[in-house]
Amino acid sequence: MTIHEIHAGLDTIWVVLTAAMILLMEGGFALLEAGFVRSKNSVNIIMKVFADITIGTLCYYLAGFGLMWGADYLGISGKSGFLLNGDLSHLKLSISNDTFWLFQAAFVIAVVSIVSGAVAERINFRAYLLYVVLMTVFIYPIAGHWVWGGGWLGKLGMQDFAGSAVIHALGGFSALAAAKLIGPRAGKFTLGPESSIALPSNLPLASVGAFLLWFGWFGFNAGSTLQATDGRIGHIAVVTMLSAASGGAACLIYTLFIYGRSDAPAVINGSLAGLVGITAGCAYVSDGAAIFIGASAGMIMLAATSWLEAKRIDDPVGAFPVHAASGVWGTIAVGFFSGDGGLFTGGGWKLLAVQLLGLAVLCAWGFLLTWFGLKLIKIWVPIRSTEEEEDIGLDISYHGIMATHDSADFIKAENMFPDNKD
Amino acid sequence: MTIHEIHAGLDTIWVVLTAAMILLMEGGFALLEAGFVRSKNSVNIIMKVFADITIGTLCYYLAGFGLMWGADYLGISGKSGFLLNGDLSHLKLSISNDTFWLFQAAFVIAVVSIVSGAVAERINFRAYLLYVVLMTVFIYPIAGHWVWGGGWLGKLGMQDFAGSAVIHALGGFSALAAAKLIGPRAGKFTLGPESSIALPSNLPLASVGAFLLWFGWFGFNAGSTLQATDGRIGHIAVVTMLSAASGGAACLIYTLFIYGRSDAPAVINGSLAGLVGITAGCAYVSDGAAIFIGASAGMIMLAATSWLEAKRIDDPVGAFPVHAASGVWGTIAVGFFSGDGGLFTGGGWKLLAVQLLGLAVLCAWGFLLTWFGLKLIKIWVPIRSTEEEEDIGLDISYHGIMATHDSADFIKAENMFPDNKD
Amino acid sequence: MTIHEIHAGLDTIWVVLTAAMILLMEGGFALLEAGFVRSKNSVNIIMKVFADITIGTLCYYLAGFGLMWGADYLGISGKSGFLLNGDLSHLKLSISNDTFWLFQAAFVIAVVSIVSGAVAERINFRAYLLYVVLMTVFIYPIAGHWVWGGGWLGKLGMQDFAGSAVIHALGGFSALAAAKLIGPRAGKFTLGPESSIALPSNLPLASVGAFLLWFGWFGFNAGSTLQATDGRIGHIAVVTMLSAASGGAACLIYTLFIYGRSDAPAVINGSLAGLVGITAGCAYVSDGAAIFIGASAGMIMLAATSWLEAKRIDDPVGAFPVHAASGVWGTIAVGFFSGDGGLFTGGGWKLLAVQLLGLAVLCAWGFLLTWFGLKLIKIWVPIRSTEEEEDIGLDISYHGIMATHDSADFIKAENMFPDNKD
Repeated sequence: MTIHEIHAGLDTIWVVLTAAMILLMEGGFALLEAGFVRSKNSVNIIMKVFADITIGTLCYYLAGFGLMWGADYLGISGKSGFLLNGDLSHLKLSISNDTFWLFQAAFVIAVVSIVSGAVAERINFRAYLLYVVLMTVFIYPIAGHWVWGGGWLGKLGMQDFAGSAVIHALGGFSALAAAKLIGPRAGKFTLGPESSIALPSNLPLASVGAFLLWFGWFGFNAGSTLQATDGRIGHIAVVTMLSAASGGAACLIYTLFIYGRSDAPAVINGSLAGLVGITAGCAYVSDGAAIFIGASAGMIMLAATSWLEAKRIDDPVGAFPVHAASGVWGTIAVGFFSGDGGLFTGGGWKLLAVQLLGLAVLCAWGFLLTWFGLKLIKIWVPIRSTEEEEDIGLDISYHGIMATHDSADFIKAENMFPDNKD
Repeated sequence: MTIHEIHAGLDTIWVVLTAAMILLMEGGFALLEAGFVRSKNSVNIIMKVFADITIGTLCYYLAGFGLMWGADYLGISGKSGFLLNGDLSHLKLSISNDTFWLFQAAFVIAVVSIVSGAVAERINFRAYLLYVVLMTVFIYPIAGHWVWGGGWLGKLGMQDFAGSAVIHALGGFSALAAAKLIGPRAGKFTLGPESSIALPSNLPLASVGAFLLWFGWFGFNAGSTLQATDGRIGHIAVVTMLSAASGGAACLIYTLFIYGRSDAPAVINGSLAGLVGITAGCAYVSDGAAIFIGASAGMIMLAATSWLEAKRIDDPVGAFPVHAASGVWGTIAVGFFSGDGGLFTGGGWKLLAVQLLGLAVLCAWGFLLTWFGLKLIKIWVPIRSTEEEEDIGLDISYHGIMATHDSADFIKAENMFPDNKD
Repeated sequence: MTIHEIHAGLDTIWVVLTAAMILLMEGGFALLEAGFVRSKNSVNIIMKVFADITIGTLCYYLAGFGLMWGADYLGISGKSGFLLNGDLSHLKLSISNDTFWLFQAAFVIAVVSIVSGAVAERINFRAYLLYVVLMTVFIYPIAGHWVWGGGWLGKLGMQDFAGSAVIHALGGFSALAAAKLIGPRAGKFTLGPESSIALPSNLPLASVGAFLLWFGWFGFNAGSTLQATDGRIGHIAVVTMLSAASGGAACLIYTLFIYGRSDAPAVINGSLAGLVGITAGCAYVSDGAAIFIGASAGMIMLAATSWLEAKRIDDPVGAFPVHAASGVWGTIAVGFFSGDGGLFTGGGWKLLAVQLLGLAVLCAWGFLLTWFGLKLIKIWVPIRSTEEEEDIGLDISYHGIMATHDSADFIKAENMFPDNKD
């Protein structure tokens, strides 16, 4: 056994294990969202996550990966690597191409899962399936190429280590476009001058989701080194932990003193906001900066939640506040605190300017492509559930089943599917 | 620190971490099954999984491991290694014997957990405990020896990398025998000419289980290399992902177009079928073959579900369709697509013939040993719950408790155990 | 790439991955406890775990870590390493300081989570937050220094590999003090001469927790080597598995034969007791000893549960029986079975005496500091919920929300927070 073989094995298991952790985050998304929405829509949102992980994976294999990571074409797109064929030597990987693909596939699924939350409880399921194709084949891969795949934003010097911008801001602005275009759930803004609240169906279930996400995030951030011998792994994991802790602590203490109660969804989303916020800078910022970034991300998440309410945009699980708002902040924070060119750490304004430019481009790209993509999809398939489907609940409407059944009795199979259309 | 020590450490942590992932699959089995059955039997099925993981582990330590992995005796059985003592040098491991044992223990527990699902909601708990002993001491270890432990099927050239046949087909046919012998749940086939359906108690809970199983499967398949320096790890993980995705996608799209609804249990079981299907061939087949194997496994799972209904065999969680049907297909598929002797990849008919022979032997072994084993157990202990136990639910009957309690009140302890017999 | 760099990378990923596994145990604690308590207090206990993991992490970063692992001062306390600054070269780590910190942070959070269970359903939330600070800044770090950080108990030769004493006995006796001082839940001992039982809100949820804890424990014990090249890793993982299995099996079989029913909470807690019991000795005892330790730990857990009832101490989730009783036993068992000086394995009485001394000190320290710490906290904040808060449930009282909501309707936001005080 040579040292080279051992090195290759070490990097491989590191990437495979962290990829598996990231894929477990899909369970986290599914349960977090299923717990936050009303129980009549829980199965549907889990099925949307299954669509992400099944259809999204295949789409990324067929086309998205090549557009993102293939040989660069004019700084805009990749042009090789479809079906994992073709030359990928420009990536200079210490792991095999397919190991690398697995890790990247886990990323693309996360992006589309962000959107699934914002359109919960009212998107047409078939339209969502088409949107999954659009996101995993085109929207995310092209943007990813710009920053990570050899494209123009990466060449400008944009720093986004594990994706506060590429994953979370892009996904979050896509979620905003979808939520705005599809409109709020029936009843959300129609009961009176104030918005109304739909109580979460199952907070313990949502907590399972949050813990799985937190666990997977260590794979997400530390695994993005792609090399087990990268000396930054320990530091990345530590700042990830510190930022998540300070995001959750900030929301816990803030809601305790302002409302007299520690608001459970705010604490959960505050921890996630801390995780999103540190994702760009985890390899570049100090412990102290991480604590500041996380706490700020939590507060910004709360502010963005209020902003959405004021703007009468309905985002049932807080996808925009958690992913877009915290992701934007995390990307900007790199411009302030990065050890490699941050404004407050001895660098100048250049990095901050690049970060802002990149953010503007990625957020606009996600928003506009989603907006017009859904408009396009709408030509063939309605993008919004009918009033009746929404009223009955998407679980029955699209899947013919409810999340929980207390009955101990058998029923006739034909009664499960009273008719044959959705 | 020598290179040899580093190599040993690397292989050790790889196997320990993947073994832990496989053991977490027990949580997956427990929750998947608890979510699929009626709520009055949820605790019982979780307790059966606890029986697998506690009693099964001890039995495998005492006897099963030696019969499976001990020095070969006539190609039929191992004869050393009981209590992890004795010579195991013939295994030529780069890891320690006990690390290897842990990984194998995780496998045996999975096999018996497959059976637990098929007999859900009506097996006598004490009879099940005895069956756990039988499976983990004898049925699986002997069969495992034939293929993996130096026995006659392995010598013939059977290829079953991580156990589509040894784990899933064997477990699934054992499940079939048990389900057939014990008979259907009261009400399943008695309401009319058509079979009836018991609605799943908790689909989000079942989904937690599915995600844990998916996560653990990366350990199951990629960990089966037993060496971190095995160059196939990345590829194994990728085809595992692709097959799971295509199994789930096939069922999602098929049920959407045929029934007008994406059937949630079908999507969940379709993904699992894809995972089962690729388990034999993950180290031998191409990406494209994996996508085909997974999608086919999903469809075969659906067909097997219908076949069971037509045959009036009651398998509450779909253990036979998911494990046996997909496992058989996955093992045959190796005969078609294996890069090392597959019919469609330049090999001849020999591998396919060996795969078919091995399957026939393993399925018959599992079925017959379980059938006659339960007959034997029946001499001492009834294998089927009484009508009353089944009607009340196994949770109250065997464990004196229900899965969920909304009451905020205290009750007298003596009211929990009104009498002292089961 | 040099062999030194590969070695460093290998140790780093081992510690980061096992730390992530331990942190996932917080999800395990949260769900186990949420499932065991009454549903009106489920959110509160999850929020307490979020307080542990957010506030506790920050406190340990600021102060606790330095007191525990800093340069030794008179064998009593550390005096450097606050905010991860200062000299830590005396630790002679093969990993970076911050990687080491992450692993240790996962430990401290576990300790305080043990206490959260014993005070479930009636502690004032603000008082609990202050207690989290006290535990993570002072109580645990000082005790940890004595045994692991270069302090006097470690110098005496106390053996506590991964913390049956430092984590579990200390945490469990702290839990006892808190449970005793705060008093039993209303109704627990007031319905009649016998104690009463509050039925668990959700056993499947508690089981998710138990499986996550079991999974994480492999990280807890095997990760405590802190070096992937430590030849004991495989053995540690195996005895961890055997002890957990025998703890669970003992309780399963015992309750089956004595009560005629396998008691589900006993089986779950029996497995956890087996895990707690082997935590001290996992690197020192044989497989056979591990099976004995685990089975005994399960039985001792049952006995301690009865003892608490007889003493009229209310511990809703069994924190004392699982952690303190089994932890004490596991620490003593090292004195009997340790390959390095155990009484039954060729050593003399010395190790046993040291173990007993260390236990007495740690248990008294945890009990007394918690007792007087809560007395101190009580000067500013009531430590017990009001009767009304307890009656309504802590979820509504402290978080303004319930664990589950079946309603499909929207409600006015102002109705969620009828008033602004807790």
